[in-house]
Amino acid sequence: MKPSNTQIFESLCNHVRETALLSSSNALLGWDERTGLPSAAGPYRADQMTYLSGLIHQRQTDPQLGEWLMTLANSELAGDPNSDTGATIRQLQRTFDRKTKLPQRLVEELTRTSVLGQQAWSKARKENDFAAFQPILEQTIKLKREEAATIGYQDCAYDALLDDYEPHERTADVTRILNDLRERLVPLVAEISESNRKPNVDLLRQSYPIAAQQSFGRAAAEMIGFQFDRGRLDETDHPFCSGMGPDDCRILTRYDEHFFPSAFFSTLHEAGHGIYEQGLRREFFGLPPGEYVSLGIHESQSRLWENLVGRSESFWKWMFPQAQKAFPAALKDVQLDDFYFAINDVRPSLIRVEADEATYNLHIILRFELEQALIDDQLSVVDLPQAWQEQYQQYLGITPPNDADGILQDIHWSAGLIGYFATYSLGNLYAAQFFQQADAEIGGLAESFAQGDFHVLGEWLRDKIHQRGQCHTPAELVEMITGRKLQCDALIQHLRDKASPLYGLS
Amino acid sequence: MKPSNTQIFESLCNHVRETALLSSSNALLGWDERTGLPSAAGPYRADQMTYLSGLIHQRQTDPQLGEWLMTLANSELAGDPNSDTGATIRQLQRTFDRKTKLPQRLVEELTRTSVLGQQAWSKARKENDFAAFQPILEQTIKLKREEAATIGYQDCAYDALLDDYEPHERTADVTRILNDLRERLVPLVAEISESNRKPNVDLLRQSYPIAAQQSFGRAAAEMIGFQFDRGRLDETDHPFCSGMGPDDCRILTRYDEHFFPSAFFSTLHEAGHGIYEQGLRREFFGLPPGEYVSLGIHESQSRLWENLVGRSESFWKWMFPQAQKAFPAALKDVQLDDFYFAINDVRPSLIRVEADEATYNLHIILRFELEQALIDDQLSVVDLPQAWQEQYQQYLGITPPNDADGILQDIHWSAGLIGYFATYSLGNLYAAQFFQQADAEIGGLAESFAQGDFHVLGEWLRDKIHQRGQCHTPAELVEMITGRKLQCDALIQHLRDKASPLYGLS
Repeated sequence: MKPSNTQIFESLCNHVRETALLSSSNALLGWDERTGLPSAAGPYRADQMTYLSGLIHQRQTDPQLGEWLMTLANSELAGDPNSDTGATIRQLQRTFDRKTKLPQRLVEELTRTSVLGQQAWSKARKENDFAAFQPILEQTIKLKREEAATIGYQDCAYDALLDDYEPHERTADVTRILNDLRERLVPLVAEISESNRKPNVDLLRQSYPIAAQQSFGRAAAEMIGFQFDRGRLDETDHPFCSGMGPDDCRILTRYDEHFFPSAFFSTLHEAGHGIYEQGLRREFFGLPPGEYVSLGIHESQSRLWENLVGRSESFWKWMFPQAQKAFPAALKDVQLDDFYFAINDVRPSLIRVEADEATYNLHIILRFELEQALIDDQLSVVDLPQAWQEQYQQYLGITPPNDADGILQDIHWSAGLIGYFATYSLGNLYAAQFFQQADAEIGGLAESFAQGDFHVLGEWLRDKIHQRGQCHTPAELVEMITGRKLQCDALIQHLRDKASPLYGLS
Repeated sequence: MKPSNTQIFESLCNHVRETALLSSSNALLGWDERTGLPSAAGPYRADQMTYLSGLIHQRQTDPQLGEWLMTLANSELAGDPNSDTGATIRQLQRTFDRKTKLPQRLVEELTRTSVLGQQAWSKARKENDFAAFQPILEQTIKLKREEAATIGYQDCAYDALLDDYEPHERTADVTRILNDLRERLVPLVAEISESNRKPNVDLLRQSYPIAAQQSFGRAAAEMIGFQFDRGRLDETDHPFCSGMGPDDCRILTRYDEHFFPSAFFSTLHEAGHGIYEQGLRREFFGLPPGEYVSLGIHESQSRLWENLVGRSESFWKWMFPQAQKAFPAALKDVQLDDFYFAINDVRPSLIRVEADEATYNLHIILRFELEQALIDDQLSVVDLPQAWQEQYQQYLGITPPNDADGILQDIHWSAGLIGYFATYSLGNLYAAQFFQQADAEIGGLAESFAQGDFHVLGEWLRDKIHQRGQCHTPAELVEMITGRKLQCDALIQHLRDKASPLYGLS
């Protein structure tokens, strides 16, 4: 008997759920590689991950999937593209089309190069040795160009890469919005720089014992809604968040005893990612309705908790007394106002993940431009360190003293993540626009934060964003939730509103 | 063109190596499950491991393997059964025959029951609640009986299970050797118990700060030869060792601030397992010449380093001054002789992994008998706690005050490991016989230990045992190395030689 469309749909979902068992196992291999792998075990770990990636790719390109999808495409189940079933069919088709274009050989090479690249990067960074990293980065660029050519694109090769992280976004559109952001940001940063008022940032560079930072950061992550019975917080070189099951989301941070913001805000940031993962509908784990919609939206959740909440005055009205208890040596004689000003210092700096809310986007725009140049063959890897130095001088007015704190600071390129950086600034823009809307709808968020209540905002985000999974495109989601397309207004207004009283802007 | 036997052999090995990529990934899932899994993530982890085990089983029973093996069985490559190629063909045939007998449904049920069983056991142990563990243990016994019936056996169902852990050993033979051991052990233990001399064991129950135990244990593991660039040492509920790659062997221990031997000797024990894993030929990882030969031989390596070396007087001549530095509060006024006597106290006790060298085997014989009774349906799970209590009273003269420190102390049954316990006593017997031989061949081991040199013994073990992999059966290996079959003489002599001066035996 011919199976019904509902039966076919169920077979399709079971197939994809089984693939998720493999991908989530591979995610554990990756997490472990970056937290606890013995130093000599790297090559075999690369073999394991390459092999699993190959199996996953085989399953994702299984012709059976294509047949099922073809049958379902015009069925009643696909009728409403924003329903759970419709979105499942639409998004699985998208993945299937993308994956079937990539030959298994290329997928395996990309995986192996990514694993070996991260290992080489980690060592090169420790030893401040870009030359040691250069060959594998060249190989990565070559493979990513091949990937773009295989996927195909309309305007430029970079489009094909960007679309992998921010579905349906085009390089030209992102360039336009980031240029707009820059044009409005530059005068604001200039105004701030000309102000006579400067925070005392030394208070952030006292001794903040790491054990105290660990428990304080953990408590803060829990307070804003990260669930520790469904996740972990660990230490690594480069903070990240990795979901490896419907109830297993792991966030990682790094500690600097003499710089409080480093671990604390990266913990809030990664917890924000984790809260998104934990807010997805767990019964759809591995399927489009239960998966994050784009990296930009993912980033909006991390930046919202890190910056819109975590650097707000009301947040610290609640947290500062606790911080004083946790770090008495550093904070017992510090006033809340001075602390608040210090963590909102706007000042060009070297390290992206430690940059302030305003200049952060300049770090991104610079990387966005450099990686486009690499992919378009306008820049070769050997010339990259110099280009990096020059761009930092041009955009931020500073020159990194070495490659470890310059071009080697980010893991992304080593892992083959090219087309990814732009999503960070998109995340900032989404975050500000979402937060503005939440505050308008819920009202009195600042008062809630000052009383330690973050629950209402968490619920709003879960309901409006997390639970939607991939039922809408990012652009649809933004317009649906905020009533307008993505634009710079909310972010610029937020930055100006915060900086004005601190820096005495007109 | 028809492939040559050499080409077929290579295809066979590649197939098995790929399977090892999956098994070693599954080993990481298992390690992580017992070290860091978020509390709510258990069910999905069970799904992941069940799915991977299914894939592994599919590969291990791939009819293609059977065809290749049939072709190779009578080829020149199988000519010498103890050569690398001969052993590969012989052992892969054994595994293939065993695995093809088990239907995938049974394998998946065994895996799922094992994962859920360990989760239930861990909780039941914390809450001293055997009744909560009983249903899954009943399910386990039922499945293991089904496994034995499916595999087939000559004398008794237990034979089929034992053979999985100690290839080619029979229940009747093991029973005979363990009975012999018991008959010679009982009078020795009685003699010791009647002695007026007793060590001051309170000195082991002072405060031994856990951080100091961690670094002291790590240093000791490294000193005896465990390589930390190819392994890790972590904390868990129940100490174990897991190899998950040619250069990734992980050992785990548990700490008790107020009982020094608990973590220290389990660290040496697991390091002994780890040294065996690290001593295997890494180029054969996943293939018989690069795999451990039996659990009894594996255990001999752990018990040799834990007891024959780690509880020897000469070992502590070297280590005791360092221990005094690491634990000044507990040891600064303690004499070496008193410490040495205390760690060699022979006294019936509750916890198997903390038992002394002599009574340890009574813990094993008791479990060996109980699990045979469960499998033979002479004992039902509901009656097991009472039988356990009675056996402890009969063999060791003590009655466990609760199930947590009684029947719930071991993870084995919860993980479906039935037929496994006997290998611990076999390990003790192998260890004593190997050590006696090593001392005779190398000479002066005690003097080397007293000077902190453990290298020569490590090399001997690596050369004689580790590097042989599965090229010989355990019985062949023992006879080849020591010139005689396995017997109790070496262990009894070792125990008597050690106890005589301490307890003033005649």
